Amino acid sequence: MNKIITIGREFGSGGRELARLIAQRLNFAYYDREIISEIAKRTSLSEQYVQNVAEHKPVIPFPIHTGRTFWAVIPDYGQNVQKEQHDIIRELAGKSDCVIVGRGADYILRDEKPFRIFVYSDDESKLKRCREKNTEDYAQGGELSDKELTKRIEQINRARAEYYEFYTGQKWGSKSNYDLCVNTSRFSDFERLAQAVASMI
Amino acid sequence: MNKIITIGREFGSGGRELARLIAQRLNFAYYDREIISEIAKRTSLSEQYVQNVAEHKPVIPFPIHTGRTFWAVIPDYGQNVQKEQHDIIRELAGKSDCVIVGRGADYILRDEKPFRIFVYSDDESKLKRCREKNTEDYAQGGELSDKELTKRIEQINRARAEYYEFYTGQKWGSKSNYDLCVNTSRFSDFERLAQAVASMI
Repeated sequence: MNKIITIGREFGSGGRELARLIAQRLNFAYYDREIISEIAKRTSLSEQYVQNVAEHKPVIPFPIHTGRTFWAVIPDYGQNVQKEQHDIIRELAGKSDCVIVGRGADYILRDEKPFRIFVYSDDESKLKRCREKNTEDYAQGGELSDKELTKRIEQINRARAEYYEFYTGQKWGSKSNYDLCVNTSRFSDFERLAQAVASMI
Repeated sequence: MNKIITIGREFGSGGRELARLIAQRLNFAYYDREIISEIAKRTSLSEQYVQNVAEHKPVIPFPIHTGRTFWAVIPDYGQNVQKEQHDIIRELAGKSDCVIVGRGADYILRDEKPFRIFVYSDDESKLKRCREKNTEDYAQGGELSDKELTKRIEQINRARAEYYEFYTGQKWGSKSNYDLCVNTSRFSDFERLAQAVASMI
């Protein structure tokens, strides 16, 4: 059976960078935005639309209980995208050892017993990281005050939590759902951290 | 400044074993029950009494708000023991690089910025570990049914949570209070795990 690592991460914690470094260390395939591109290809939808649908819980005008499947019957509210995402994640996990970032992959692949990592950090540390990076991945907060940027970071993380909880019925970031939780606030050398994590697996 | 590692741990998770291995790896001093013995020596109280008082929140017949100090004024309810514990932990941390297990040391030493680890595991895994070990450290569950032993494990962990929350005002095991949270359910080779954790520090 392939070795699979899933990495959930708070926005601004550097989780994606850490995930990439762990994949490099272990020589595992790395999947993140590649999944969005593949869904777009298969559904002939734009990447932007797919990303929006694939990373947010549906906004629906009536209460609905979806149970715990990933392709709940919600016509016109992203069902196809979720179904494709689910299938693609399972296909990728069947292909080779890999690291998969976000997208509830820990839950989708639960029968494969992936090694489940959650990456988080203190609010102050998130703000600092977003300021330093100032790219699309980091909220492009150049023009924003600290308060505004903090609010944007919180909004993105709230959306991630809602997405995860909607599709899995579990609490996002709750340590009982993970094998390892890493607070990156304390680590400046991500290469070294990635090496240490890789050596656990 | 000395390097200090504090390790909070769920009963039954193997946190103490992991702590000892990390200390060995790093050649750091290791403090756990040694703290109880030292308090007993300084206060002329029995080790058993000290352990009981030092590891449980006081049972008091009236509501009291202690604030966030470790030697709240609770006459006759373990004040001296808590005060000694606080002083000894600070003395030990000042002496050399060290690993300190439990006792809210992460909070007592917060100004020293210790590396704070929390060790936990799934319920099933705790039960299995306690069954296999069957020593005083592991609830001596030889005679108990799985249900009874699980209940005992939960009781001990509830007492730890109450103790921590009483003296620190923070939630025990909440990942935001730690730099690393390790779910030992997934790891069979503690030597290797300890080596990986040690290499992060």
